[in-house]
Amino acid sequence: MSSAVATAQPSAGRTFSKGLEGVTAAETRMSFIDGEKGVLEYVGIEIDALARHSTFEETTYLLWNTRLPKKAELDAFCADLRSRYEPPEFVTNMIRAFPKDAQPMHMLRTAISALGMSDPDPNKNDVASARQKSLNVLAQAPAIVAYFDRHRRGLPLVKPNKNLSFAANFLYMLNGKEPTPTMERAFDACMILHADHGLNNSTFSARVIISTMSDVYSALTGAVGSLRGPLHGGANEDVMKMLGEIPSVGDVEKFIVGRLERKDKIAGFGHRVYKAYDPRATYLKTLAKQLATDTGNTALYEKSQAIEQVMLREKAAKGIYPNVDFYSATTYHCIGLQLDLFTPMFALSRIAGWAGHVIEQLADNRLFRPTAEYVGPHGVQYVPLAQR
Amino acid sequence: MSSAVATAQPSAGRTFSKGLEGVTAAETRMSFIDGEKGVLEYVGIEIDALARHSTFEETTYLLWNTRLPKKAELDAFCADLRSRYEPPEFVTNMIRAFPKDAQPMHMLRTAISALGMSDPDPNKNDVASARQKSLNVLAQAPAIVAYFDRHRRGLPLVKPNKNLSFAANFLYMLNGKEPTPTMERAFDACMILHADHGLNNSTFSARVIISTMSDVYSALTGAVGSLRGPLHGGANEDVMKMLGEIPSVGDVEKFIVGRLERKDKIAGFGHRVYKAYDPRATYLKTLAKQLATDTGNTALYEKSQAIEQVMLREKAAKGIYPNVDFYSATTYHCIGLQLDLFTPMFALSRIAGWAGHVIEQLADNRLFRPTAEYVGPHGVQYVPLAQR
Repeated sequence: MSSAVATAQPSAGRTFSKGLEGVTAAETRMSFIDGEKGVLEYVGIEIDALARHSTFEETTYLLWNTRLPKKAELDAFCADLRSRYEPPEFVTNMIRAFPKDAQPMHMLRTAISALGMSDPDPNKNDVASARQKSLNVLAQAPAIVAYFDRHRRGLPLVKPNKNLSFAANFLYMLNGKEPTPTMERAFDACMILHADHGLNNSTFSARVIISTMSDVYSALTGAVGSLRGPLHGGANEDVMKMLGEIPSVGDVEKFIVGRLERKDKIAGFGHRVYKAYDPRATYLKTLAKQLATDTGNTALYEKSQAIEQVMLREKAAKGIYPNVDFYSATTYHCIGLQLDLFTPMFALSRIAGWAGHVIEQLADNRLFRPTAEYVGPHGVQYVPLAQR
Repeated sequence: MSSAVATAQPSAGRTFSKGLEGVTAAETRMSFIDGEKGVLEYVGIEIDALARHSTFEETTYLLWNTRLPKKAELDAFCADLRSRYEPPEFVTNMIRAFPKDAQPMHMLRTAISALGMSDPDPNKNDVASARQKSLNVLAQAPAIVAYFDRHRRGLPLVKPNKNLSFAANFLYMLNGKEPTPTMERAFDACMILHADHGLNNSTFSARVIISTMSDVYSALTGAVGSLRGPLHGGANEDVMKMLGEIPSVGDVEKFIVGRLERKDKIAGFGHRVYKAYDPRATYLKTLAKQLATDTGNTALYEKSQAIEQVMLREKAAKGIYPNVDFYSATTYHCIGLQLDLFTPMFALSRIAGWAGHVIEQLADNRLFRPTAEYVGPHGVQYVPLAQR
């Protein structure tokens, strides 16, 4: 025997690649990555152009429709999204009863799952319905995070404001006041930059789950669960933790060189895919600088910049550059986000990508059903308990 | 360009197999399937021997430890499981507030996710902790289903009884009285028979999610979401629906032949993997017969048996036999389960398998990160909104 399930391809065992590394598992029209050259495109458009000129809403439209919208289309899309900002009352009440010390990603996974419980037809899976359900989750996830954060801080919940953009509305619900234009822009850019990234683990999870013809809520709930792992999105807190360990810009050289000598990892540097400067970090660095200046966090930005300089000197030759997490950390901190909300921010943005992949999968579905190689014993007798 | 992510294997595109069919994605020591010969073994022991002689608790121990327990080990395992039967109060209160018309699989996914919110250290991922968390979910999932079902029926919740087995305790919480020995045995056998089945989609989902070093709650929540799809566990209601459409045993011949002539599928027959008699159906058929007799459902069993006879005559030559769902339907109906609880029953049982795979994955983890083939455009300019 060589394969756990009899298939048409008895040579299955020979293709075994742990973690499916190098295995193509799907086709996509959404994002293209060339890690060697440091290129990321959404539907053929360079990420840097989108970060500078687009909005998260427009970028989501692009990913879900594989083209940019005309003005009337974008207006309709934004109006539809805004009309859905407020979660069902049952979910809001649920959040008010959540344990205040729950970890936000466990909270977000649970509340997104709960949205499926009040959808009158949660399993409907034609592409048009999947878009509607995706829009629901995308529109309501910011309120879920903001409500929970205010609940645990003992503050009254702030209902969504339908006159505000996705980015501004989230910051308004979180902080109880509208963000400055720089804050809104920086946050919106973070949302654009994290929206999609090929067949990363959470996106793959969403496609695997929807392939049973399950439902949008199941697929997105599973993806949130995947994202929180430290080998995926869960590590984006580490940059801020590291910045907190360095007293001032003058301590950076010694701190970083010391870590490198001990072969410790430097948070926010290097990426599984990119061997060049992460194309998502370029513009974010500019925004982080401006935001840090505006919010009195210049020292934080200067530390970040000094870390980058030391790292480029020491590691650029080995293809280790700052990644998108590095300047996201400064940005999120300056916006006033608590550390354990950094990964949920990644999730808010990536819902756009996950949902786009769910829509792609549904449009041309085949059940994901790989095989396992059975490596255990055969022909074992069941020995009655008394005789063991 | 041929692959969406630069990898060490530029030939990745050539290995593309839709749905990962025939691709080996993991190794396992848990279940072995030979679909041609109709063999299913858990850790080398034939499923039929386990269904006849083991208990669900012992089978779970077998799957999680790849050997049968000695008496003292089994006693300790059962005592530990029973000590965890009652969900945290916060989750029970949550269930009391769930919409009564929520679909049970959306409910189960949400409540299992919520268990992670009151775990004091939900992300702990060493194998020993993962076993503890898995035991929590396995122990509490029956109460979640039973509580919700009684909540929606407007009945008072029945707290778990720690003197009862997993099977008996669930039926006690659901119906408010202890099951007969035949009911307990039949339900326990269903739990054994559904516990593991290679790298099916929900099991694969659980392994993909845990591979980010996420957590047991995330992995099992994702798996529940996958299972509910009609291409996976979600179709097990269809057998009962079909039985309901056939007035009496005398109508079976005409009904089935008519369906076959219209090339309609017959629910509960044929399996993606098995081309022989599903080894899980053999003993279940005996139990279903006894249970049907005990509970005054003889006519239902007789209809089932008549369907099997027509189908064997018409389709056995093509490798289409009754599968495990076929006699599960009669069993679940005789136990008093509502139709929309059939798939949750599958989930209760499969938690054992999912958790075993999570433990296996954690013991030798590699992040699942396949690649996507990018098939969209390149070099697209960002055209400002006003110029589109």
